[in-house]
Amino acid sequence: MRVLVLAAGMGRRFGNSGRPKVLERLLGLPLLERVILTVREAGPSEFCVVVGHSNGEIINALGDGSRLGVRITYVNNEDWEKGNAYSVLAAKEVLNGDRFLLVMGDHQFDPEIIRRLVEIRISEGCVACVDRNLSSVFDVHEATKVLLEDGKVRDVGKNLGEFNAVDCGIFLCTSDVFSAVQECVARGQGELSHAIALLARQGKVRAMDVKGAFWFDVDTPGDLREAKRRILRALSKKEDGIVSKSINRRISTRISARLAGSGITPMQMSILSFLLGLLAVPFFSSGQYPFLFAGGMLIQLSSILDGCDGELARLKFRTTRRGGFLDSVLDRYADAFMIISLAYGYWRIAGGEFVWLACLLALSGSFAVSYTRARYEGVFGTGIRPGGIPATRDVRIFLLAVGAFVNQPLPALAVVGVMSNAEAIRRLIRWR
Amino acid sequence: MRVLVLAAGMGRRFGNSGRPKVLERLLGLPLLERVILTVREAGPSEFCVVVGHSNGEIINALGDGSRLGVRITYVNNEDWEKGNAYSVLAAKEVLNGDRFLLVMGDHQFDPEIIRRLVEIRISEGCVACVDRNLSSVFDVHEATKVLLEDGKVRDVGKNLGEFNAVDCGIFLCTSDVFSAVQECVARGQGELSHAIALLARQGKVRAMDVKGAFWFDVDTPGDLREAKRRILRALSKKEDGIVSKSINRRISTRISARLAGSGITPMQMSILSFLLGLLAVPFFSSGQYPFLFAGGMLIQLSSILDGCDGELARLKFRTTRRGGFLDSVLDRYADAFMIISLAYGYWRIAGGEFVWLACLLALSGSFAVSYTRARYEGVFGTGIRPGGIPATRDVRIFLLAVGAFVNQPLPALAVVGVMSNAEAIRRLIRWR
Repeated sequence: MRVLVLAAGMGRRFGNSGRPKVLERLLGLPLLERVILTVREAGPSEFCVVVGHSNGEIINALGDGSRLGVRITYVNNEDWEKGNAYSVLAAKEVLNGDRFLLVMGDHQFDPEIIRRLVEIRISEGCVACVDRNLSSVFDVHEATKVLLEDGKVRDVGKNLGEFNAVDCGIFLCTSDVFSAVQECVARGQGELSHAIALLARQGKVRAMDVKGAFWFDVDTPGDLREAKRRILRALSKKEDGIVSKSINRRISTRISARLAGSGITPMQMSILSFLLGLLAVPFFSSGQYPFLFAGGMLIQLSSILDGCDGELARLKFRTTRRGGFLDSVLDRYADAFMIISLAYGYWRIAGGEFVWLACLLALSGSFAVSYTRARYEGVFGTGIRPGGIPATRDVRIFLLAVGAFVNQPLPALAVVGVMSNAEAIRRLIRWR
Repeated sequence: MRVLVLAAGMGRRFGNSGRPKVLERLLGLPLLERVILTVREAGPSEFCVVVGHSNGEIINALGDGSRLGVRITYVNNEDWEKGNAYSVLAAKEVLNGDRFLLVMGDHQFDPEIIRRLVEIRISEGCVACVDRNLSSVFDVHEATKVLLEDGKVRDVGKNLGEFNAVDCGIFLCTSDVFSAVQECVARGQGELSHAIALLARQGKVRAMDVKGAFWFDVDTPGDLREAKRRILRALSKKEDGIVSKSINRRISTRISARLAGSGITPMQMSILSFLLGLLAVPFFSSGQYPFLFAGGMLIQLSSILDGCDGELARLKFRTTRRGGFLDSVLDRYADAFMIISLAYGYWRIAGGEFVWLACLLALSGSFAVSYTRARYEGVFGTGIRPGGIPATRDVRIFLLAVGAFVNQPLPALAVVGVMSNAEAIRRLIRWR
């Protein structure tokens, strides 16, 4: 399926920053590039970008799309000042007759919206993505309002008196959209929303609620800051543990935001996090207090950076299965090194056999928690349900780090061992 | 899709065993029940069973199918002595107009054949499953021969002069089959193969090669024994390790064949295998030689029985994801207990720190091999490729058992530790 991207406007409300709005950088990437990469993540890879204002700069920046793994055809809209309906019309010949996606070059959204949208079968009119959760819309005043009735769009417009949703600027279209745009343009109505309203009054616009999925219209520098905040917030995962939620993600997302524009790859972050964990080994092995403290700092730092590889991959649209595999296996080895060196250091200083029992418990429990999760995903095809005893990696490492900080490695190992084995056994028994 | 099962004949060649041939037991289940469960495993759950000879006994045995998780409708064929074409005709009203599957009540086959067959789209005639690998056919003389040309069946018959395949007795049919059967019956030809031959000469029979998938026609007591042999052989998995292939499977499949007819469940076998592994712990922990030998026997026996749960599940058509999950997590804990107790026993007798290094290596390596496999399946959706360093569970346990037999636990732990970690690191580096 081909994708029509409207990027001809000048972005008046954004003010004069010296470059076209769609090339403004958000977390390391130009807005327009993020739009294209978001759609590509959901599948489609053939793009038709309509340019007008600053067309040369945009074409220079994106090229033929091969750098982004897509194919881009450009259409020039000389009438860009008259409204975005003219941009749609300019692409009519290129998109001859097929169904196509229509997105705005300055909107940001969750690829999940596109994944669900392309599954819908239509033969006439279009499907408009709408957000019914008005309280989450950042700037309702500036939004295009939508009146829904029985899953269909009844009316669309910026100044609607009655409305129950907001237009997200993402459409699945048939060629009916071109006819409607043509009719509107003939009447002197230059905005795409006029054409959608026309189709809506003919009962030809279905609505798809985004159901809480992220989307954002970037019109002003303030919008850009808010979009950044929301994208970073969306980097947390619902399966994140309690330490991750309250400490690690807050720091790691800030680091990832800084690194998003750099050349550092997710895999380099995986390896850096692993090496920091290894660096703790000599400190832990010494068994001496001030060194233990330093080791604790190192493993907690490693745990924080362990979030950056995935975050960076998502921010750069470079998530790969291989990266996820590598990261998780390195984590298991880092876990083993931390636990064993902490036990060894304690044994060297204090002796006794009990520390080895605690070590073996912590080692097998840590592995078992990770193994049950991985195996569950492989067997059932879905993630294990959150809940149960908090023994995720963030919590386990935090407990070990605290144990090192207060010079009590043995209780820390014992607690990690008991909690993680208890959680693994819980998963084994209640495996629904 | 509905499934027509022909079970009206008396099975003359089987001899008089006192019960209908389709109720003869093969690995614990009546032939006909196995046919129905095989098809259900591939998806379809609506069956129409044509009975004739011994109809009461068959209906009594299968009931309405709810025990098997399917729905069965029975059709009585009073003319069963005239040939199986009359059975097809008897079901005509029940299967009104839809496409349907047609299988023989006495054939055994791989559900994969049904999975592939139901994917084929046809609008006329039928698709016949054929086996082009004539050398694997047990009794070509008795088989129904097929002459293929360009993927279509040209002719079918028991006494074909020229043929290049054999009919497997599994068909995907349109209602054209009923017309052809009617025409043949009017001519006095009472076998289904006559009708298939008639459709074949009209160019309406497509062929689907089973491509090595298991199928078997059970006509005689000798066939029954051969079918059993082939089904048991198919229980081995291509990812089985070298010890599993050459020792464990040979024994475990024999045990599973014995247990197939009993009430023992796959989960009970998982737990039994786990408990046998645990039972080795006190023997290993003693560190004394004759006890070590007994511990080695126990873990090797546990390893052999570890194959029985999956085999039994497949033989009883009771494979579940939950069973696979439970089995694998129990295996990880059994691994940990075996390794730790072996190391502990050695340390008690001989002392020294080196055994703990070997123990930690073996523990982390065993976990890492299993973890990389599980994670690989979860991330990539396919199994890890066989090959690499042989460090699968069967090999690891065998090495530990041999170490115990010859009173050398330390080298055994060290070898397992080095081999399994090397394999895990290999998978990490070459994760394609």
